[in-house]
Formats: sequence, structure tokens, C-alpha cells
Amino acid sequence: MNKHEILQFISKRKTAFIGSVNEQGFPVIRAMLAPRKIEGNTIYFTTNTSSKKIKQFTENNKASVYFYRRGLIKYQGVCILGEMEVCTDQPTKDMIWRKGDTMYYKLGPTDPDYCVLKFSCKTAQYYCDLKHETIDF
Amino acid sequence: MNKHEILQFISKRKTAFIGSVNEQGFPVIRAMLAPRKIEGNTIYFTTNTSSKKIKQFTENNKASVYFYRRGLIKYQGVCILGEMEVCTDQPTKDMIWRKGDTMYYKLGPTDPDYCVLKFSCKTAQYYCDLKHETIDF
Repeated sequence: MNKHEILQFISKRKTAFIGSVNEQGFPVIRAMLAPRKIEGNTIYFTTNTSSKKIKQFTENNKASVYFYRRGLIKYQGVCILGEMEVCTDQPTKDMIWRKGDTMYYKLGPTDPDYCVLKFSCKTAQYYCDLKHETIDF
Repeated sequence: MNKHEILQFISKRKTAFIGSVNEQGFPVIRAMLAPRKIEGNTIYFTTNTSSKKIKQFTENNKASVYFYRRGLIKYQGVCILGEMEVCTDQPTKDMIWRKGDTMYYKLGPTDPDYCVLKFSCKTAQYYCDLKHETIDF
């Protein structure tokens, strides 16, 4: 798998998992909706400004995103390590916003509880069954 | 959800995700087969002694295990934080071993590449749609 194939693989997944490190140094995992946008080495997610992960990423931007596919025959997974930036600026919020988002953020794109997570990929570990390989971004 | 209900929920999941912290302080996520055994506050997994996560857990035992269910109507997820112990002692390896494991570990229960991950639950965060609650073990 090269970088392009990794990004193709993740663009087809419906669920993403993101990892953060909490104040006590424990790794924390959460399922997320699929990325809103993938552009170059950057992956964008939407989330609630008030959520715990925002506090964690503000204090420690070391992060991971994980995607997997468990087919009938083979298992594929990719864990990308990188840095997570919390974006609360209006241009980024406007760029990522979609009409249906009012279901989650009633005040629209300026809702203070709506923010964007911007993940910069550094390196990935791709697993396919018992084999694995490292891909640098 | 109480502790008992959390353990019931995870016992029905087919995939587990485990989190570790690598040498550079990044959270690392991997999908795993469902736990082999859940007993009290302890969750057992099998894995390859040579895998990267074994090195990570030996150096830093802070860990998490994550389980989720994305139903038609609601999403449920639980992230349990705790400590991961790498067990290479024969009594633990014998206790966890199952016949079919020779598919992965050709030398049987004494295969040096077969080991057991023993996770001790400390605290869990349970998510159901947009609500969440903390459960202590």
C-alpha cells in the first residue's frame, strides 16, 4: 500500500476511530463518523466543542486515527499517527459545514459547540491479516 | 449502565480495539479478535509475542480497550481505561489456549510467539448517542 492507496481505503470506511492521550497518560479511543473531508495529508472531522476529546487534544495534540475492514476473507486495518488541531475559526467551520449538521448543532455553522478536528498524517501502519507495513506521509 | 451491564455488552461484541501509547507518546489503536475470557474486572486476549504492541505494553502498561455497536437506531460505545499485563508464563498461556489456536501458533501452547494480554479495568466511559457516563470498576 502506498499513501494514495491508504487514503483511498479510508475514504470508503463509514466509521473512524480516533485516539488521544488523556491527562493521566492513558490512550483513549472513540468511534467517530467518517471524515468530512480528506485533502492531501489532512483529515477533517466535526465534533462538539464541549466534548472531552477537545480538552485532551488542546493539552496534547498527539493523536491517531484508525480504520478497518473485516471482510469474509481478510482483515485490513490502518492506524495513522499524527497531530490533531482543534479549529474553532469561522472560515474552517464554514468550509466543513453541511446543511444537515443543524441536527447536531442547532445554531448553525456559528454554533459555539460546533468545531472541526484537523488531523495531519505523519506515518501509518497498515495491517492485512498477519502482515504489516509502514507508510510515511 | 453499571459495571455488570458493561461487561455483558462487551461480551457480545465480535471485535475489540486496544489502545497503547508508543515510545514517542502517540496513542496507537488496533482491532483485535474478541476477548478470549472476561473474568471479574479482567479481560484476556491472545496475541503474538513479537508484535509491536507487546513492546509498547512492556514499556508502558497504560492501555484502553474499546467496543462499539452501531445499530440502525442508536450508537453505543465503551472505552475502558486500565493496565495491560503481558503474560508469557505457561499456566496463563495454558488457561487461555484453545485447540484452533494452532492455526496462528504452530508450536501449540508453548509456542514462544504465543502470549496473553491481561487487561485490568479501572474506569469506563460509556457513550450512547450524544450522552455519556462514567463507570468505575
